[in-house]
Amino acid sequence: MKAVILLSGGLDSSTTLYQALADGYECYALSFDYQQRHRKELNSAHSIAEKAGVSQHQVIKFDLTQWGGSALTDNSIDLPQERSLKEMSQDIPITYVPARNTIFLSFACAYAETIAAEKVYIGVNALDYSGYPDCRPDYIQGMQEVFRLGTKQGREGNPINIVTPLIDLKKTEIIQLGNKLGVPWELTWSCYSNGDVACGVCDSCRLRLAAFDELGLTDPVDYAK
Amino acid sequence: MKAVILLSGGLDSSTTLYQALADGYECYALSFDYQQRHRKELNSAHSIAEKAGVSQHQVIKFDLTQWGGSALTDNSIDLPQERSLKEMSQDIPITYVPARNTIFLSFACAYAETIAAEKVYIGVNALDYSGYPDCRPDYIQGMQEVFRLGTKQGREGNPINIVTPLIDLKKTEIIQLGNKLGVPWELTWSCYSNGDVACGVCDSCRLRLAAFDELGLTDPVDYAK
Repeated sequence: MKAVILLSGGLDSSTTLYQALADGYECYALSFDYQQRHRKELNSAHSIAEKAGVSQHQVIKFDLTQWGGSALTDNSIDLPQERSLKEMSQDIPITYVPARNTIFLSFACAYAETIAAEKVYIGVNALDYSGYPDCRPDYIQGMQEVFRLGTKQGREGNPINIVTPLIDLKKTEIIQLGNKLGVPWELTWSCYSNGDVACGVCDSCRLRLAAFDELGLTDPVDYAK
Repeated sequence: MKAVILLSGGLDSSTTLYQALADGYECYALSFDYQQRHRKELNSAHSIAEKAGVSQHQVIKFDLTQWGGSALTDNSIDLPQERSLKEMSQDIPITYVPARNTIFLSFACAYAETIAAEKVYIGVNALDYSGYPDCRPDYIQGMQEVFRLGTKQGREGNPINIVTPLIDLKKTEIIQLGNKLGVPWELTWSCYSNGDVACGVCDSCRLRLAAFDELGLTDPVDYAK
């Protein structure tokens, strides 16, 4: 049984990969170099895929800076810094990349159909930091319909199913799950900036640090602040 | 009013672009270099976008030969040749590229949201040669839901709408529409192979030639056979 796993190299997608392995799947990891500000995450994706022993790791390359529209794809837009969790939860942040998960899931669907995989795993999470429109259950359900209707496999009654093991978990619960599964946190990269070490002040770092802190655990990753 | 138009450089997408212009939109053309066998179509897309006077023409580049799965993305798979229209209509052909329109529409959605466009035009056609799963009305409806749920614009009650002006037209009717709109057929490229002139024997050439023939018209494009 094969599964495609969307792997950015961050905490959520790494936990998702380890969950797919625990579920018994032969795992095919898929990452994207879209000229994101934090392309460094691809090194993490590579290390984690290797450590986890995936069957294959594909990196699809394209350039979303051609049109920008996000702090992650346009360097002239500043990253939000030092925001509280409450501020983060208030609206869709400037780190939102238009239609990013739709693009990622589309490629995952293509890859899955080509290798005859049954599942596509994605580490979306609707609870913490839920501003992103393309992380919510109704959206995932919409993509599931597209997977069913837009593929040969789906039309033949054998659709590729999207699995979202983290969708209802809080960040603390994701860390607890990852600990149980043995996710190598030290190899992961969640930071939105591209420094030598994680910045500690972008939304992604702060959310991650707050969750480790709440659990009384130490994040093994180095932080500038 | 802005619209994004998926433009491959073929007969259908060129007619779709001219329809969007006739509908009064400021047009942003979007093409893909996915290392397709018939990359030559990109020259046509470029010429047609220029001739039509689009506001911008973006070409997104990625490599679907990384996993293949289609005669258009794997040179070791032969293109079907000299098939009758009846043979073509029987099942999903080997020129089907897994999830291709889902990938194309995902990028179109991202581009549209970034430039605040209202519409995405795509020249899918469910009647002739309807083997492709991702050219049918129910699939397009599914993508429409994804556009609504997966974007900031959609969540704010202002979804990007997908327009499919050719979906119910026969190939002959598309040519009649294109003639009315002044589509420069001589600049288009429909052939699946990458020769100096169109092959005349692949499914795409045969379908096109049959339609011109049925109308008693001459296709201005040169053919090897």
